[in-house]
Formats: sequence, structure tokens, C-alpha cells
Amino acid sequence: MSIPFAAVHGDLSGYLTALFLLLLAAKIGEEICRHLHQPVVAGEILAGVIVGPSVLGLVELNNVVEVFAELGVIFLLFWVGLETKISQIASVGRSAALVGVVGVVLPAGSGVLLALVFGASTATAVFIGAALAATSVGITSALLMDLKLQSGRAARTILGAAVIDDILALIVLAMATGIATGGSVDLGDVGILFALAVPFLVFVSLGGSRVFRRWPKLLEVPRFADSPLMPAVIICLGLAVLSAEIGLAAVIGAFLAGMVIAETRDHNSIESEVAPIYAFFAPFFFTAIGVQVDISSFTDGDTLLLLGGVTLLAVVTKYAGAWIGSIGLDRRDRAIVAAGMVPRGEVGIIVAGIGFSEGVIRDELFAVVVGMAVLTTLIAPYMLKSAARRRR
Amino acid sequence: MSIPFAAVHGDLSGYLTALFLLLLAAKIGEEICRHLHQPVVAGEILAGVIVGPSVLGLVELNNVVEVFAELGVIFLLFWVGLETKISQIASVGRSAALVGVVGVVLPAGSGVLLALVFGASTATAVFIGAALAATSVGITSALLMDLKLQSGRAARTILGAAVIDDILALIVLAMATGIATGGSVDLGDVGILFALAVPFLVFVSLGGSRVFRRWPKLLEVPRFADSPLMPAVIICLGLAVLSAEIGLAAVIGAFLAGMVIAETRDHNSIESEVAPIYAFFAPFFFTAIGVQVDISSFTDGDTLLLLGGVTLLAVVTKYAGAWIGSIGLDRRDRAIVAAGMVPRGEVGIIVAGIGFSEGVIRDELFAVVVGMAVLTTLIAPYMLKSAARRRR
Repeated sequence: MSIPFAAVHGDLSGYLTALFLLLLAAKIGEEICRHLHQPVVAGEILAGVIVGPSVLGLVELNNVVEVFAELGVIFLLFWVGLETKISQIASVGRSAALVGVVGVVLPAGSGVLLALVFGASTATAVFIGAALAATSVGITSALLMDLKLQSGRAARTILGAAVIDDILALIVLAMATGIATGGSVDLGDVGILFALAVPFLVFVSLGGSRVFRRWPKLLEVPRFADSPLMPAVIICLGLAVLSAEIGLAAVIGAFLAGMVIAETRDHNSIESEVAPIYAFFAPFFFTAIGVQVDISSFTDGDTLLLLGGVTLLAVVTKYAGAWIGSIGLDRRDRAIVAAGMVPRGEVGIIVAGIGFSEGVIRDELFAVVVGMAVLTTLIAPYMLKSAARRRR
Repeated sequence: MSIPFAAVHGDLSGYLTALFLLLLAAKIGEEICRHLHQPVVAGEILAGVIVGPSVLGLVELNNVVEVFAELGVIFLLFWVGLETKISQIASVGRSAALVGVVGVVLPAGSGVLLALVFGASTATAVFIGAALAATSVGITSALLMDLKLQSGRAARTILGAAVIDDILALIVLAMATGIATGGSVDLGDVGILFALAVPFLVFVSLGGSRVFRRWPKLLEVPRFADSPLMPAVIICLGLAVLSAEIGLAAVIGAFLAGMVIAETRDHNSIESEVAPIYAFFAPFFFTAIGVQVDISSFTDGDTLLLLGGVTLLAVVTKYAGAWIGSIGLDRRDRAIVAAGMVPRGEVGIIVAGIGFSEGVIRDELFAVVVGMAVLTTLIAPYMLKSAARRRR
């Protein structure tokens, strides 16, 4: 017998209340930041800190909030994909690849080395490296949109780099998990990841757009006022799930789905219809990051010092790596790319969480890595804004 | 320490897969029904039966799916509210009240009586009465929209009646729960429900629209491309949660929120932006109903006979009650109102679920009540269509 609605009906109202509070807090945080001419993303994250366990304790992270947060970043990247042509990414391919590679190697390498110098175990050190490696393309995309930079050459380089970044960061993470569990790196896992990820990326981005160019009617099955929205959303979710099953981030699949659909003639109407869905879900993504911060961990000076050090390392190494990698671009685009790669957002938190569940990143260190992920996210908009000002 | 994303990261992908499968199934079911000129709502419910535990077993009901289903019906009623003026409901107030009252008393009364005649306990009998009492205004609204009848006099009568219907059905349910747990009806509970529900309805519907007429700028805080969408969505969720806290259905609050915002000058742009959000969530509402059906319960003749009898009783008594109640309307509007009140949808399932968890509606009877709720929902569109054809 299936479980009836009513069995958890009491909870249902609790979940709705949590979603309502997160939206309301995000909105208020955003408006305050707008009035103070601060980045709205920061307002939403801080709103999450305030309603979360750190301050008011009104909202806790649960699987419903997590699914909404995940859909927030999925629809964000889908929307970004809808505004991106594959040819635009291809045109900055070399810079993007270089930014992705150097931008991962430098922070991951220095993270591992410094952690070993300070006496951490190999497993812990590699996890810290992994947490420092990956950029949150979701956060960066939102920041670029807020600054109306999303269609420039720098933005395309960042998006291309983010795909490389995600693959490399996953390899570092696979190494870290291998060391933590078995004591050695499972090269088979890394091989499988490559063997699945590369064909997936190539097949979807090139084959997918060819399919839609050949059968443009595929998206024209009407759902609501004859719009192609729902087929597009189903393709987005399907590729996101597939991407997650392969081991890549779900957002990579969503971004590819957006790029593929951007090749169709319906993409303008899809864009305008996806916008409200994105606007609804995105605040959960940003506030959920804030909800995961544990302010009470940062009461003694040593922890704060460690947090400051790790954050500084994260900012400097990523900025330098991306700056070096973007050698083909002009000076001002390089500054945007370098600043845009800084935020670690939810990706750093996810890596820290895996390290936590593997037992190699505990308590104080976990709080520090989560704090680093959030601080880089709060700092990045100021760096981007200043880079963008020089840009004009 | 808060629980990191990654702790349930494996599950997260499972939830996304379930959501993806439900959307895909809903879309396919809908298209098949459209081709066969059958009601699309039926296609979505049957799609839920097929992917659910009854047939393929791909998707199970869990709290994430339930929250999406609940938001589906919340945004559905919000959208209906946006298309409804308070004055339009007021103009059919007397008919609506009469339809609500007679449409609850007749099915609930006959349900209780017949159950007692067939030897059920008082508690079980009152629960069956409660399950027969309440109309699913969500299903009816979707059907009216599909038939483009949502702005007629009959539709307004149904919406007004649904509010009365919900309050009365809740009273019957409170009585049933009282008898099941304590053996007697707690009149205090009924009193509290009244004391909260009536001022809530009056204050929100009259006071709310006055607030927006006086301060029309309240909704103009921009979020995304300067749209008033997010403030409107926050008001919708807030009133839905408040309504659920009082003990009313969350959809009543969402409907009131829609009606209040319909009084503002922004309501057209809000309507067009809520449409994609509704289009995204609504399929979860319909498929979740199907997921809850347990076909394996209906293998022997006796159970099928009982299902047929209960369904016939549900259709005839509701139709007759609404027909009698709508005495002030013309003949053809009365047929639409009567047919429109027939579907029990998720409301019948919720009542059955409460009875199940109280231990008074078990196994076979539970499956029968759920089956009745679904069958009335599948029959209603055909009745409505035939009534609408006479209407033109």
C-alpha cells in the first residue's frame, strides 16, 4: 500500500513554511543590499545565514530545501546555456581550457602542499586541495548577469573553463576519496569518469544541436498556451540527471541542455518562460549556502586566523591561476575571468561535506572550508565589479 | 554542525530522477490523451499510475514529490485566483453557498448512512462520509481551464462553493477524527476552526485587496527584469501556509492571494509570469494522485463491486446536491456546476489517508476510497464536457 499524502501532512506544512521563509528572507536581504549598492547575491546568502541555525534557527537544511536549491542552480545554468551558442564557447576554447587547467592546478597544488606542511594527513590534504580547486559556475553566472556581463568574451571563457574545471576538480575529488577510503588513488575511477564525461560532452553539445536543427518540431509539442517550455524543461532535467549519474555536476548537463536548445528557433520564447521558474528557484540556491554556515565555530582567534589564511590562499591561487590561463585575452578581460573564477560556492561546501562524511575533514576544519567557500563567494562580486569598471 | 549538501547527495540525484520521470510521464500521457481527444488531466493521472508502484514501480511517493504536488495545486489555485475578482464571487454568493452546503450534506449524509447499514463502525462511517464530502477544487479548476469555462458564471459559483465546501468538509473530518480518537466529537475544535477560518477569509479577501488598492507600489519591488512576480509568489505562499496553519486547505489561501492580487494593476504581468511556474508544478499534482493508486487491491470481484458502488454514490449524491443547490442559475449552468463538483481528487485521498493513520479505514476500504477519489476525477471531465456542449 502506498503511503498516503496525509501520513506526512503535518510535515508538508513545515516544508512549505521553510520554503516561504527562505524566499521571504532572500527577498528582504536582496532589497537591503540593493539599497546599499551591494551585490544582491551576498544579500541572499546572508539572509540564509540569518534564518538558518547560526542565528534565528527558523530553517534547517532538509532534502526538500536541498532539491529546491539544486533546481535553483540547474535552472540558473540552463538559462545561461540558453543565452550561449556553442560556437561562442568554441571560439574561446583554448583560453577556456587553459584557465580551467591552471585554475585548478594552482589552488589544488598549493592547498595540498600547505596542508602537508602544517602536518595534515595525506587524505586531509588532498581533500583541502579538492575544496580549493572547483569554482561555482552557478555563483559566477549569477554575478555576471547582475553586472550585465553575461554575453562578453570573458563570460564565455569562464563558462568554458567551468566545464574543464568541473572535470578536473572531480578527478582531484576522486583521488581524495580514493586515498581516504583505500589509501590509494583508484585510477580506474578516474578512467571511467573520463570515458563517460568526454563522450557525453561532445555527443550532447554537437549531436544535440544537430538533432534540433534537423527536427525543429521536437520542441513544439504544446503544453501550456502552446509553449515549448515543458519539453525544454524535461530535456534540461533529463540531461542534468544523466550528467549527475555519470559523475559530473548536474549543472553541467543543464548548461549543455540550454546550449543545445539555444540553437533552435524557439529559444527566445523558452528563455522568457524559463526566467520566472529560475527566479522562483534561484533564491533557494543562494540561501541554502548561507543556511549551511555555522557561525558558532568561529569564536576563537585560531579558527578565525585559519579561516582567513585558507580564504586568502583560495582567492590568490585561483585568481593567479585563471590570470595565467587567460593569457590569450586582453588585460581587462583577464581581470574579469580571474575574479569570476574565485567563488567556490556550493561546490566547495559539497567537497567539504564528502570529506566530512569520509571522516577526514572534521569539526573546525569543516567549518573553515565551508567558511572559505562562502567568503570567496561574498568577496568575488566586489572583485568582479572592480574588474568590470576597468573593463568599460 | 549543519548537515552538508553531500550527506544526502546520492539521494538528491534520486529525487531529481523521480521529478524528471514524473514530468516526462505526465507529458507523454497528456499528448496521448490529446491525440485521442480525451481530457489531458486523465492522461496525467494515468501516467502517475503507470510510473508509480502499481505498474512500473519507477517512482514512489516521498516528501519531495509531495511538496511539488502541493505546490502544483497551490499555484493552480493562485492562478485561478488571479483570474477572479472578488466582486464576481460575491455576485454568485448565494448560489455558491447553497451549492457548498447541499453538495456536502447530501454525499456525506448518504455515505454515513449507507456505511452504517452495511455494518461499519460509527468512526469508519463518518470517515467515509468525510471522504465523499469534499470536492477537489484543484481538479475542477484545471478541467474548467481546459474547456475554457474558467470565467463563466458556473465557474465562479464552483469557486465560491469550493470555499464553503472545504470548511464544511473540514468540520465533518474534525468530527470523524474526534470519534476515531476519543469516541466523541470535539465541539471545541469545530469552534476554533470557525473562529479562525471565517475572520481569515473575510479579512484577507476584503482587507487584502484594500491594502493593494491603497499602496499599489507594494508589489513593484523588482526581482527579475523588474517584475512583481516574487513579491506575489511570497504572498501566495505566505497565505497558503497561514491557511494550512488555521486548519483550512493551503489552496484556499493561495486562491485568496490570487484574488487579492487580481485587484492590483500589475495582475496581468503577474499572471503571465506565474503561468510557467504553474505549468512546471501542476503535472506533479496530477501524477502524484495516480502514484497513490494501488491497482493490485482491485483483483477480486467484491472489491471491484464495492468500488463501483461507492463511486456511483459519490457521483450521484454530489451531482444531485450541487444541482439542487444551484437553483438560482439557468439549467445549463446548473449542469456545469453539478458536474464540476464531482471530482474528489487529492482531497478524498487525504481524508482516506487520515482515516488510514487513525486505524479506522484499512486496506481494502482505503484502496476503495482512493479509487473512488481517482475515478470521480476521471469521470468528471466527460460529464463537464457534455454539460459544456449543451451550454453552447
